Amino acid sequence: MNITVLGGGMVGSAIARDLARETAFTVTVADRDDAALRRCASADVCTQQADLADEAKLQAVIADAELVIGAVPGFMGYETLRCVIEAGKNVVDISFFPEDPFSLDALARERGVTAVMDCGLAPGLGNILMGRMTAELDEIETFLCCVGGLPIVRRKPYEYGAVFSPIDVIEEYTRPARYIENGVEVVRPALSDVEEIDFDGIGTLEVFNTDGLRSLAETMKAPNMKEKTMRYPGHVALMKALRDTGFFSKQPIDFNGQRIAPLDFTAKLLFPAWQMKEGEEDLSVMRVIIRGRKGDTWETHTWDLLDRYDAVLGVTSMARTTGYTCAVAARLVADGSYRHAGISPPEFLGANAAVYDALMDGLSDRGIAFTHSVE
Amino acid sequence: MNITVLGGGMVGSAIARDLARETAFTVTVADRDDAALRRCASADVCTQQADLADEAKLQAVIADAELVIGAVPGFMGYETLRCVIEAGKNVVDISFFPEDPFSLDALARERGVTAVMDCGLAPGLGNILMGRMTAELDEIETFLCCVGGLPIVRRKPYEYGAVFSPIDVIEEYTRPARYIENGVEVVRPALSDVEEIDFDGIGTLEVFNTDGLRSLAETMKAPNMKEKTMRYPGHVALMKALRDTGFFSKQPIDFNGQRIAPLDFTAKLLFPAWQMKEGEEDLSVMRVIIRGRKGDTWETHTWDLLDRYDAVLGVTSMARTTGYTCAVAARLVADGSYRHAGISPPEFLGANAAVYDALMDGLSDRGIAFTHSVE
Repeated sequence: MNITVLGGGMVGSAIARDLARETAFTVTVADRDDAALRRCASADVCTQQADLADEAKLQAVIADAELVIGAVPGFMGYETLRCVIEAGKNVVDISFFPEDPFSLDALARERGVTAVMDCGLAPGLGNILMGRMTAELDEIETFLCCVGGLPIVRRKPYEYGAVFSPIDVIEEYTRPARYIENGVEVVRPALSDVEEIDFDGIGTLEVFNTDGLRSLAETMKAPNMKEKTMRYPGHVALMKALRDTGFFSKQPIDFNGQRIAPLDFTAKLLFPAWQMKEGEEDLSVMRVIIRGRKGDTWETHTWDLLDRYDAVLGVTSMARTTGYTCAVAARLVADGSYRHAGISPPEFLGANAAVYDALMDGLSDRGIAFTHSVE
Repeated sequence: MNITVLGGGMVGSAIARDLARETAFTVTVADRDDAALRRCASADVCTQQADLADEAKLQAVIADAELVIGAVPGFMGYETLRCVIEAGKNVVDISFFPEDPFSLDALARERGVTAVMDCGLAPGLGNILMGRMTAELDEIETFLCCVGGLPIVRRKPYEYGAVFSPIDVIEEYTRPARYIENGVEVVRPALSDVEEIDFDGIGTLEVFNTDGLRSLAETMKAPNMKEKTMRYPGHVALMKALRDTGFFSKQPIDFNGQRIAPLDFTAKLLFPAWQMKEGEEDLSVMRVIIRGRKGDTWETHTWDLLDRYDAVLGVTSMARTTGYTCAVAARLVADGSYRHAGISPPEFLGANAAVYDALMDGLSDRGIAFTHSVE
């Protein structure tokens, strides 16, 4: 089966390499950037240089694909996904674009396309767990997903390294967080409600509000749903200071007669300080808490995940947890284990017991396993 | 006696108003800025608009002065002082210029001019105490001066408001601190060796290295001499993060084809956040510790000073402690109590018991009084 991976970045290359292990798959990675393609190229992975922002080129690239993986930058994710669905190709997407994916649902149904989106770590695994619990329990009262990608070596002052686009990290620190509380949508400032939690294998982390519920806010009916971010303690105070002083502002200010957005200038100084060095080890940490009722007993389920950099393959933990979730889901779409004409957020996959079990088994085969406890 | 105050800023205006209380003095404030002059003008204070950077105008302004007070910004302080000495006028200066004042000593001697410099809070009062102890004790082992100007209302994240030029504050946070340790000059990074101390009436403050010994490093022979800065706890961590990320750098970086010094851009965002509002109350805090030997007993002297905003006159504490020290010293030069042809740093005044007592009495009359303890 021909599988085309759109985007050969950190995550796309990890997905391609994982899928290429199946002899039944012929995997091709398409990217505009030659350097990225060189990193992806191997005995089992073909590459194709193409500007995927050019619709005609994109159509050509996916022409003979039987399954497409969307791993392009978020800003071009929606258009790319639309074009792939238009072409009638099944697709699993992890570009995390800001637009509403369900606006493509009618098109996908019409084309009979199975289009899985947001299928990574977060969004992704949290949605899958929520989907499963919604199917298993009679009523869900609370969903809380806390997630973070962090460097293993903690260097002051930030104790942080951007494991994905730093500009998207700043966006998380500025965009208000939309939550569901007692059945109504509430909005909280980013970086607010900071609390410290202890996490096995890491120690104390700070947890704070960031916007990230995405599809769950629409697909799930639980009266309390939140997604939060985790960092090493002290990070939020620095980010708040920078944000509140205006360093993250996109509103241009006058400077020597030139109009400059403070964020653009800040990026020049801050992002190098956040740059993960080649081979610098990262970890991914996630805690999902779901409380609900089965019959007349209330259960609180807690899942903890701690994943580390793969030094053997040289794959970051963020690429592992995001890319392998996508790669395992892709197999299930490829072999028909999961079929749904339309847009499928990850919670749809989790709602299917067989699909859920296959996902968790596939992740566990790759060393990504939750510890699960029930109270 | 005609006294001309050069510079009608926050400190200069406080000095003028204080000196004008003497019927024997005719006080004139000269400044380029009309707004500043309007603030200074009163029944007892004359004003004169003049660009003091223009030597001819400066000469005209001081032509019939019998005593001159230098209260101009530091960058123009040295040239202004040179011109005043050149004109043969006695002068008391608090412009805190970076150049070496003793390079004007020969000129002052030749003109028979008494030129007192650095005569404020810090530099100033710490030097005066050191001068006194040097005269009273047989040997001085340690001099430590900790000083800070802070807002009374503490607002996160900085808990700071610039009571003098914020660009000079950043300079203190970046310029290495030159100290004397065990008789040799050592250099410590700014913002280093942070420790917390408790101060009566304020609570816990953090103390850290900043460059500020100035004349003491040359005039005094003590084997251990340090000057440090005090802030509310947490301020240093933020300043370190900004400095170490490059926000305080003067090295221009390329930005949209333009060369921009990060500090210039940072100033646009940070300085408004440090702006003291009109009437916002400040405090000045100082601790001077001098250890030395008299005969064969070792003594450790500690002086604590806590001064607050004068709500009646609307004078900031920084203007009080800096300006009134200068104003009291000016009286002693005016009535001949202190005479020394040449450059006099404040330690020279402190070395003279009668002058020292008069200075402390004058300050105490204005509500600026140290608590002094000996161990």
